[in-house]
Amino acid sequence: MSVYRITLGTPEELVPTKFSPKSKIEVTPLSIEHAKELHFKQTARGLLVEFPLNPGNEVYGFGLQLKGFRQTNRKKTIRPNADPISNTGDSHAPVPFFVTTEGWGIFVDSARYVEFNCGYTKVSTASTAAHSELKSEFSEIYAKREASYPTVFTIDVPHVKGVDLYIFKGENMLDCICQYNLFSGGGCDVSLWGLGNLYRCHLEFNEKQVLEMAEKFRKMEIPCDILGLEPGWQSCSYSSSFVWDSERFPHYKETFEKLKNMGFKVNLWEQGFVHPSSPLYEKLLPYSGDYKVWDGLVPDFSTDGARELFVKHHEELQSLGVKGYKLDECDGSDYTGHWTFPLCSEFPSGMDGEQYHSLFGTLFLQTMMQVHGREKTLAEVRNLGALASSYPFVLYSDLYNHKDFIRGVSNAGFSGLLWSPEVRHAESKEDLVRRVQTVVFSVQSLINAFYLDDMPWIDKDCTEEIKALLELRMALVPYLYTAFYEYKTAGKPPVRALVCEHPEDKNTHELWDEYYFGDSIIVAPMTAKEESRKVYLPEGQWYGFFDGKKYEGGAAFEVTTADIPVFVKSGTVLPLATPVQYIEKDTQFEITLYCYGNTEGAVAKLIEDNGFEYAEDARVLRVNDHTLTVESYRYGIKEIKRIP
Amino acid sequence: MSVYRITLGTPEELVPTKFSPKSKIEVTPLSIEHAKELHFKQTARGLLVEFPLNPGNEVYGFGLQLKGFRQTNRKKTIRPNADPISNTGDSHAPVPFFVTTEGWGIFVDSARYVEFNCGYTKVSTASTAAHSELKSEFSEIYAKREASYPTVFTIDVPHVKGVDLYIFKGENMLDCICQYNLFSGGGCDVSLWGLGNLYRCHLEFNEKQVLEMAEKFRKMEIPCDILGLEPGWQSCSYSSSFVWDSERFPHYKETFEKLKNMGFKVNLWEQGFVHPSSPLYEKLLPYSGDYKVWDGLVPDFSTDGARELFVKHHEELQSLGVKGYKLDECDGSDYTGHWTFPLCSEFPSGMDGEQYHSLFGTLFLQTMMQVHGREKTLAEVRNLGALASSYPFVLYSDLYNHKDFIRGVSNAGFSGLLWSPEVRHAESKEDLVRRVQTVVFSVQSLINAFYLDDMPWIDKDCTEEIKALLELRMALVPYLYTAFYEYKTAGKPPVRALVCEHPEDKNTHELWDEYYFGDSIIVAPMTAKEESRKVYLPEGQWYGFFDGKKYEGGAAFEVTTADIPVFVKSGTVLPLATPVQYIEKDTQFEITLYCYGNTEGAVAKLIEDNGFEYAEDARVLRVNDHTLTVESYRYGIKEIKRIP
Repeated sequence: MSVYRITLGTPEELVPTKFSPKSKIEVTPLSIEHAKELHFKQTARGLLVEFPLNPGNEVYGFGLQLKGFRQTNRKKTIRPNADPISNTGDSHAPVPFFVTTEGWGIFVDSARYVEFNCGYTKVSTASTAAHSELKSEFSEIYAKREASYPTVFTIDVPHVKGVDLYIFKGENMLDCICQYNLFSGGGCDVSLWGLGNLYRCHLEFNEKQVLEMAEKFRKMEIPCDILGLEPGWQSCSYSSSFVWDSERFPHYKETFEKLKNMGFKVNLWEQGFVHPSSPLYEKLLPYSGDYKVWDGLVPDFSTDGARELFVKHHEELQSLGVKGYKLDECDGSDYTGHWTFPLCSEFPSGMDGEQYHSLFGTLFLQTMMQVHGREKTLAEVRNLGALASSYPFVLYSDLYNHKDFIRGVSNAGFSGLLWSPEVRHAESKEDLVRRVQTVVFSVQSLINAFYLDDMPWIDKDCTEEIKALLELRMALVPYLYTAFYEYKTAGKPPVRALVCEHPEDKNTHELWDEYYFGDSIIVAPMTAKEESRKVYLPEGQWYGFFDGKKYEGGAAFEVTTADIPVFVKSGTVLPLATPVQYIEKDTQFEITLYCYGNTEGAVAKLIEDNGFEYAEDARVLRVNDHTLTVESYRYGIKEIKRIP
Repeated sequence: MSVYRITLGTPEELVPTKFSPKSKIEVTPLSIEHAKELHFKQTARGLLVEFPLNPGNEVYGFGLQLKGFRQTNRKKTIRPNADPISNTGDSHAPVPFFVTTEGWGIFVDSARYVEFNCGYTKVSTASTAAHSELKSEFSEIYAKREASYPTVFTIDVPHVKGVDLYIFKGENMLDCICQYNLFSGGGCDVSLWGLGNLYRCHLEFNEKQVLEMAEKFRKMEIPCDILGLEPGWQSCSYSSSFVWDSERFPHYKETFEKLKNMGFKVNLWEQGFVHPSSPLYEKLLPYSGDYKVWDGLVPDFSTDGARELFVKHHEELQSLGVKGYKLDECDGSDYTGHWTFPLCSEFPSGMDGEQYHSLFGTLFLQTMMQVHGREKTLAEVRNLGALASSYPFVLYSDLYNHKDFIRGVSNAGFSGLLWSPEVRHAESKEDLVRRVQTVVFSVQSLINAFYLDDMPWIDKDCTEEIKALLELRMALVPYLYTAFYEYKTAGKPPVRALVCEHPEDKNTHELWDEYYFGDSIIVAPMTAKEESRKVYLPEGQWYGFFDGKKYEGGAAFEVTTADIPVFVKSGTVLPLATPVQYIEKDTQFEITLYCYGNTEGAVAKLIEDNGFEYAEDARVLRVNDHTLTVESYRYGIKEIKRIP
């Protein structure tokens, strides 16, 4: 396993690798002479890299693409954007990395808005004869515009005189993705409680209302680990003061104590723009960009000065026991007007606005990880970019189309990102149930009620259904925690599109609305408007998670169900926990082993570790279809069930 | 009247002025020392220009902006785009020119994707005290984000070492716009028949179906001057062969003869991508870019070679009597995938893809004007950019939101562009009527039925209403032709937003859904979903066009009407023609003079000229509220009516 670095020209100094964690994989420098198919040249626009793309080699990646999936023949511009309304590359978390079904990928080490043309036809390379079928067929014209002969892939890095390319040559597509994640420092180490349910309260709730909501969860016995406070906790936000609002939270210390006693972890909304009324403002002036956003400073989080001021300022919050932060608005948007700094901004580190725009979320997040110190978390951020695999932060969006959110789930895994298809309001009971079904089968189970007075299921008359789903989520925690362990150690994304595992199976190439959840489960979410849906299952045998029905894979099935279509691979020993309301340091999970089909020789892994703080104490417990006892403070086996 | 040119650094060679018509206004070079407030510097990203923007000085322009109007405090990136779905600057026709309510404007002579930051706040310039009201007011947060203190305007020209700025300092805002248009070569000289109604037939119609449609118009006595043929006339399109389809049009010559005899002018769809099956293909190879689009060549229309081949090839079509071309797809889109050449393309002229993308529509259009020779036209194009005022080509879009289309009408006039809110299908009878009402009060009355088997009003049971509207359009032709004459000679846009005339009136600053149609009429279109609408009328007295009701201006009125709200300024002598079915070289319009309020001393101008071919024969006839005879082959006065 090795990554190759090719240096073209003279790269810029301020690039993603300068700010990224240490690679967990060896990097081998490669001379351009050894990459004969690759050409580059300097143009008026920057550095241009060009190489051939074979017919049938499909391209994926470029970060959290909510509007597109298979990117072959498309143009992607790597530009952070808070409102990615079209399939242009604009994204909360665009990443200059792609992977192909041939099992190789390229990372472009640049904080510029790199442009990828993923297979265009040159006059010199085109076989004109092949395209006579295009003749006057209006109705099908749009479907036919993609080339079936070799095309040219170009990477256009603006404004630079050189760039480092990192080439990942995997044994297969998934291996290539794993390599990228290991190069990024490995997958993230998440807190165990972070996999529980997260509920964000209305942004204007005061401490009394927050406590009432917390008590309501416990009284109704709806599992909830984390309560999120939105901007209203601060005396000023948009831009932010970073201090408590004395009217809403006069007794914040007592409030924290009470929430802690109820088993809640508190997550606080923050934003990287510092209001003049903030105690941080004056001190941050030398460490900020020259433009304001919402009248606030934009700290240069790549400077020690800004980081130290933030860490120092957050000491009191940490001492209260804040367990996570939601880092909002760090993506910025061209679409919403005056919402971010211009590209011509200048920052003390020497970055311009374009570079800082690409790195803002990552650098802000790194600062907040410094705030957390040794405490593990699973928190939220609205902008990430290159080499973000090792950060326990989940992306989210103000968009809300359920299909787009599902596309985000399968897309994020190509590029070392985590994404939650969060639930806010719902159009109907069915819409709410379908959305919660999706979110419990994602990396973070998030109900974001920041503009809702009450839990969204109360007025939809479906409390029992939602409660059952949030309990199901708790049952899945040990299984998901294992998947995260594989992410951390081997780079394998906990959630990933089917094409990652089956690149040779063309049926998976456009399949964005199904995904692997861990190693053994395929999830095919449904939306409110669908009465049934088509599900494709890869070669092999599969069992319905809810009904135990057997499916012969390598085919598509029309599925009609009120449950979310979920399928377990034959041969799986699936460990499901008896749901707890919330996770504590000493929580022991009571496990039932569900054995699907012939599980002879199969094992499930269970990860026993601290779960709350970073520690090198992980034990991998292997349980098979006969395990009835394990020696573990974290897990106990309750029973074994066989399907069928 | 004078335009100032400031040269910053060393400008690129391939810029809009290199390809634009001769300025009709004197240009005075100005040294940077005389523009003290203006600063510029070279950055890694290109050339950066910076100057202050006063509070209250509002910014407009940047071309055909369908999604935005007042651009103050916004960022606009000048990038052609076939699918401008958000207010980013992306546009079928983006223009690096803006105008302010203070009466000055700047044109940036660049074919790059110039970025304008129209008033951002610098840390150094901001008065923090002014913004204490931002504190924790969530619900109103978005409305309050615009600065009320002096801001910085920046122009970021990527990739260049220098640029020419042209500064227009007008007596007022409208004068500034007129200067820009005169600098662009003056407003366009349109064919008289071009102001009649244009109907585009279904793209798959054969010659028989086209003739039947033509006969139907004449039989139903619905005025129609121009019939448009869509891609189906060609043997191959997407990309295009530029030769007749022998199955659909085996007798195209006879068809043309018949259409001509019925008084129709024919407009042909074309596209700038040349299919391998085209007789032009091989010859164009040396004059084309290195990438293909839809398997077709992209001719470099800035080369004599490509132009000459196109002109030569179109000789037969011209001899048939083609009167106009619709130049499609020359905008390209990042949003629709493989739809245009990449920015790294290289063209024989030395342009790269970014430069050619900015100039493609203009250069293609210039080639087709060469094809037309001395024949006047009013045709269609889907991409334009800088300095396009002198081209008799109207922009259109595949978008179809009626409100966006109305916004296009008021926006186009800021930047020397023409735009038609074309009518295609309709959701309902009301939708169709409201859309046709809008289009007859625009520069081009276009029914684009390219995917409709029949006239869209037939199955909506509103033929009589639509017929009346298309007749009204014919009544307006002389008035509109005069407005175009003012455009050509003085640079005054025939249709324009109210703010152009009333920059000091803040009520007009956000008013994108009303516009001046010529000098004396204000149009306030309604959409199907509105039962009533608010109409603001500027200072002065106004009369309802349909009901003669009197309004005291300087106020807003709630208007409920099945007609389109149209208002005529008191003191207007409005010449309306008795509708004809179509316009011929010797058409004489029978005019009724409508005199609104006190018309003592007022005159209406009527333009008598060839109308079909370019000729310096224009006579301006001035008729007042007593004129009953004029000596003119074009106009006769029928009667005078007084309102009230």
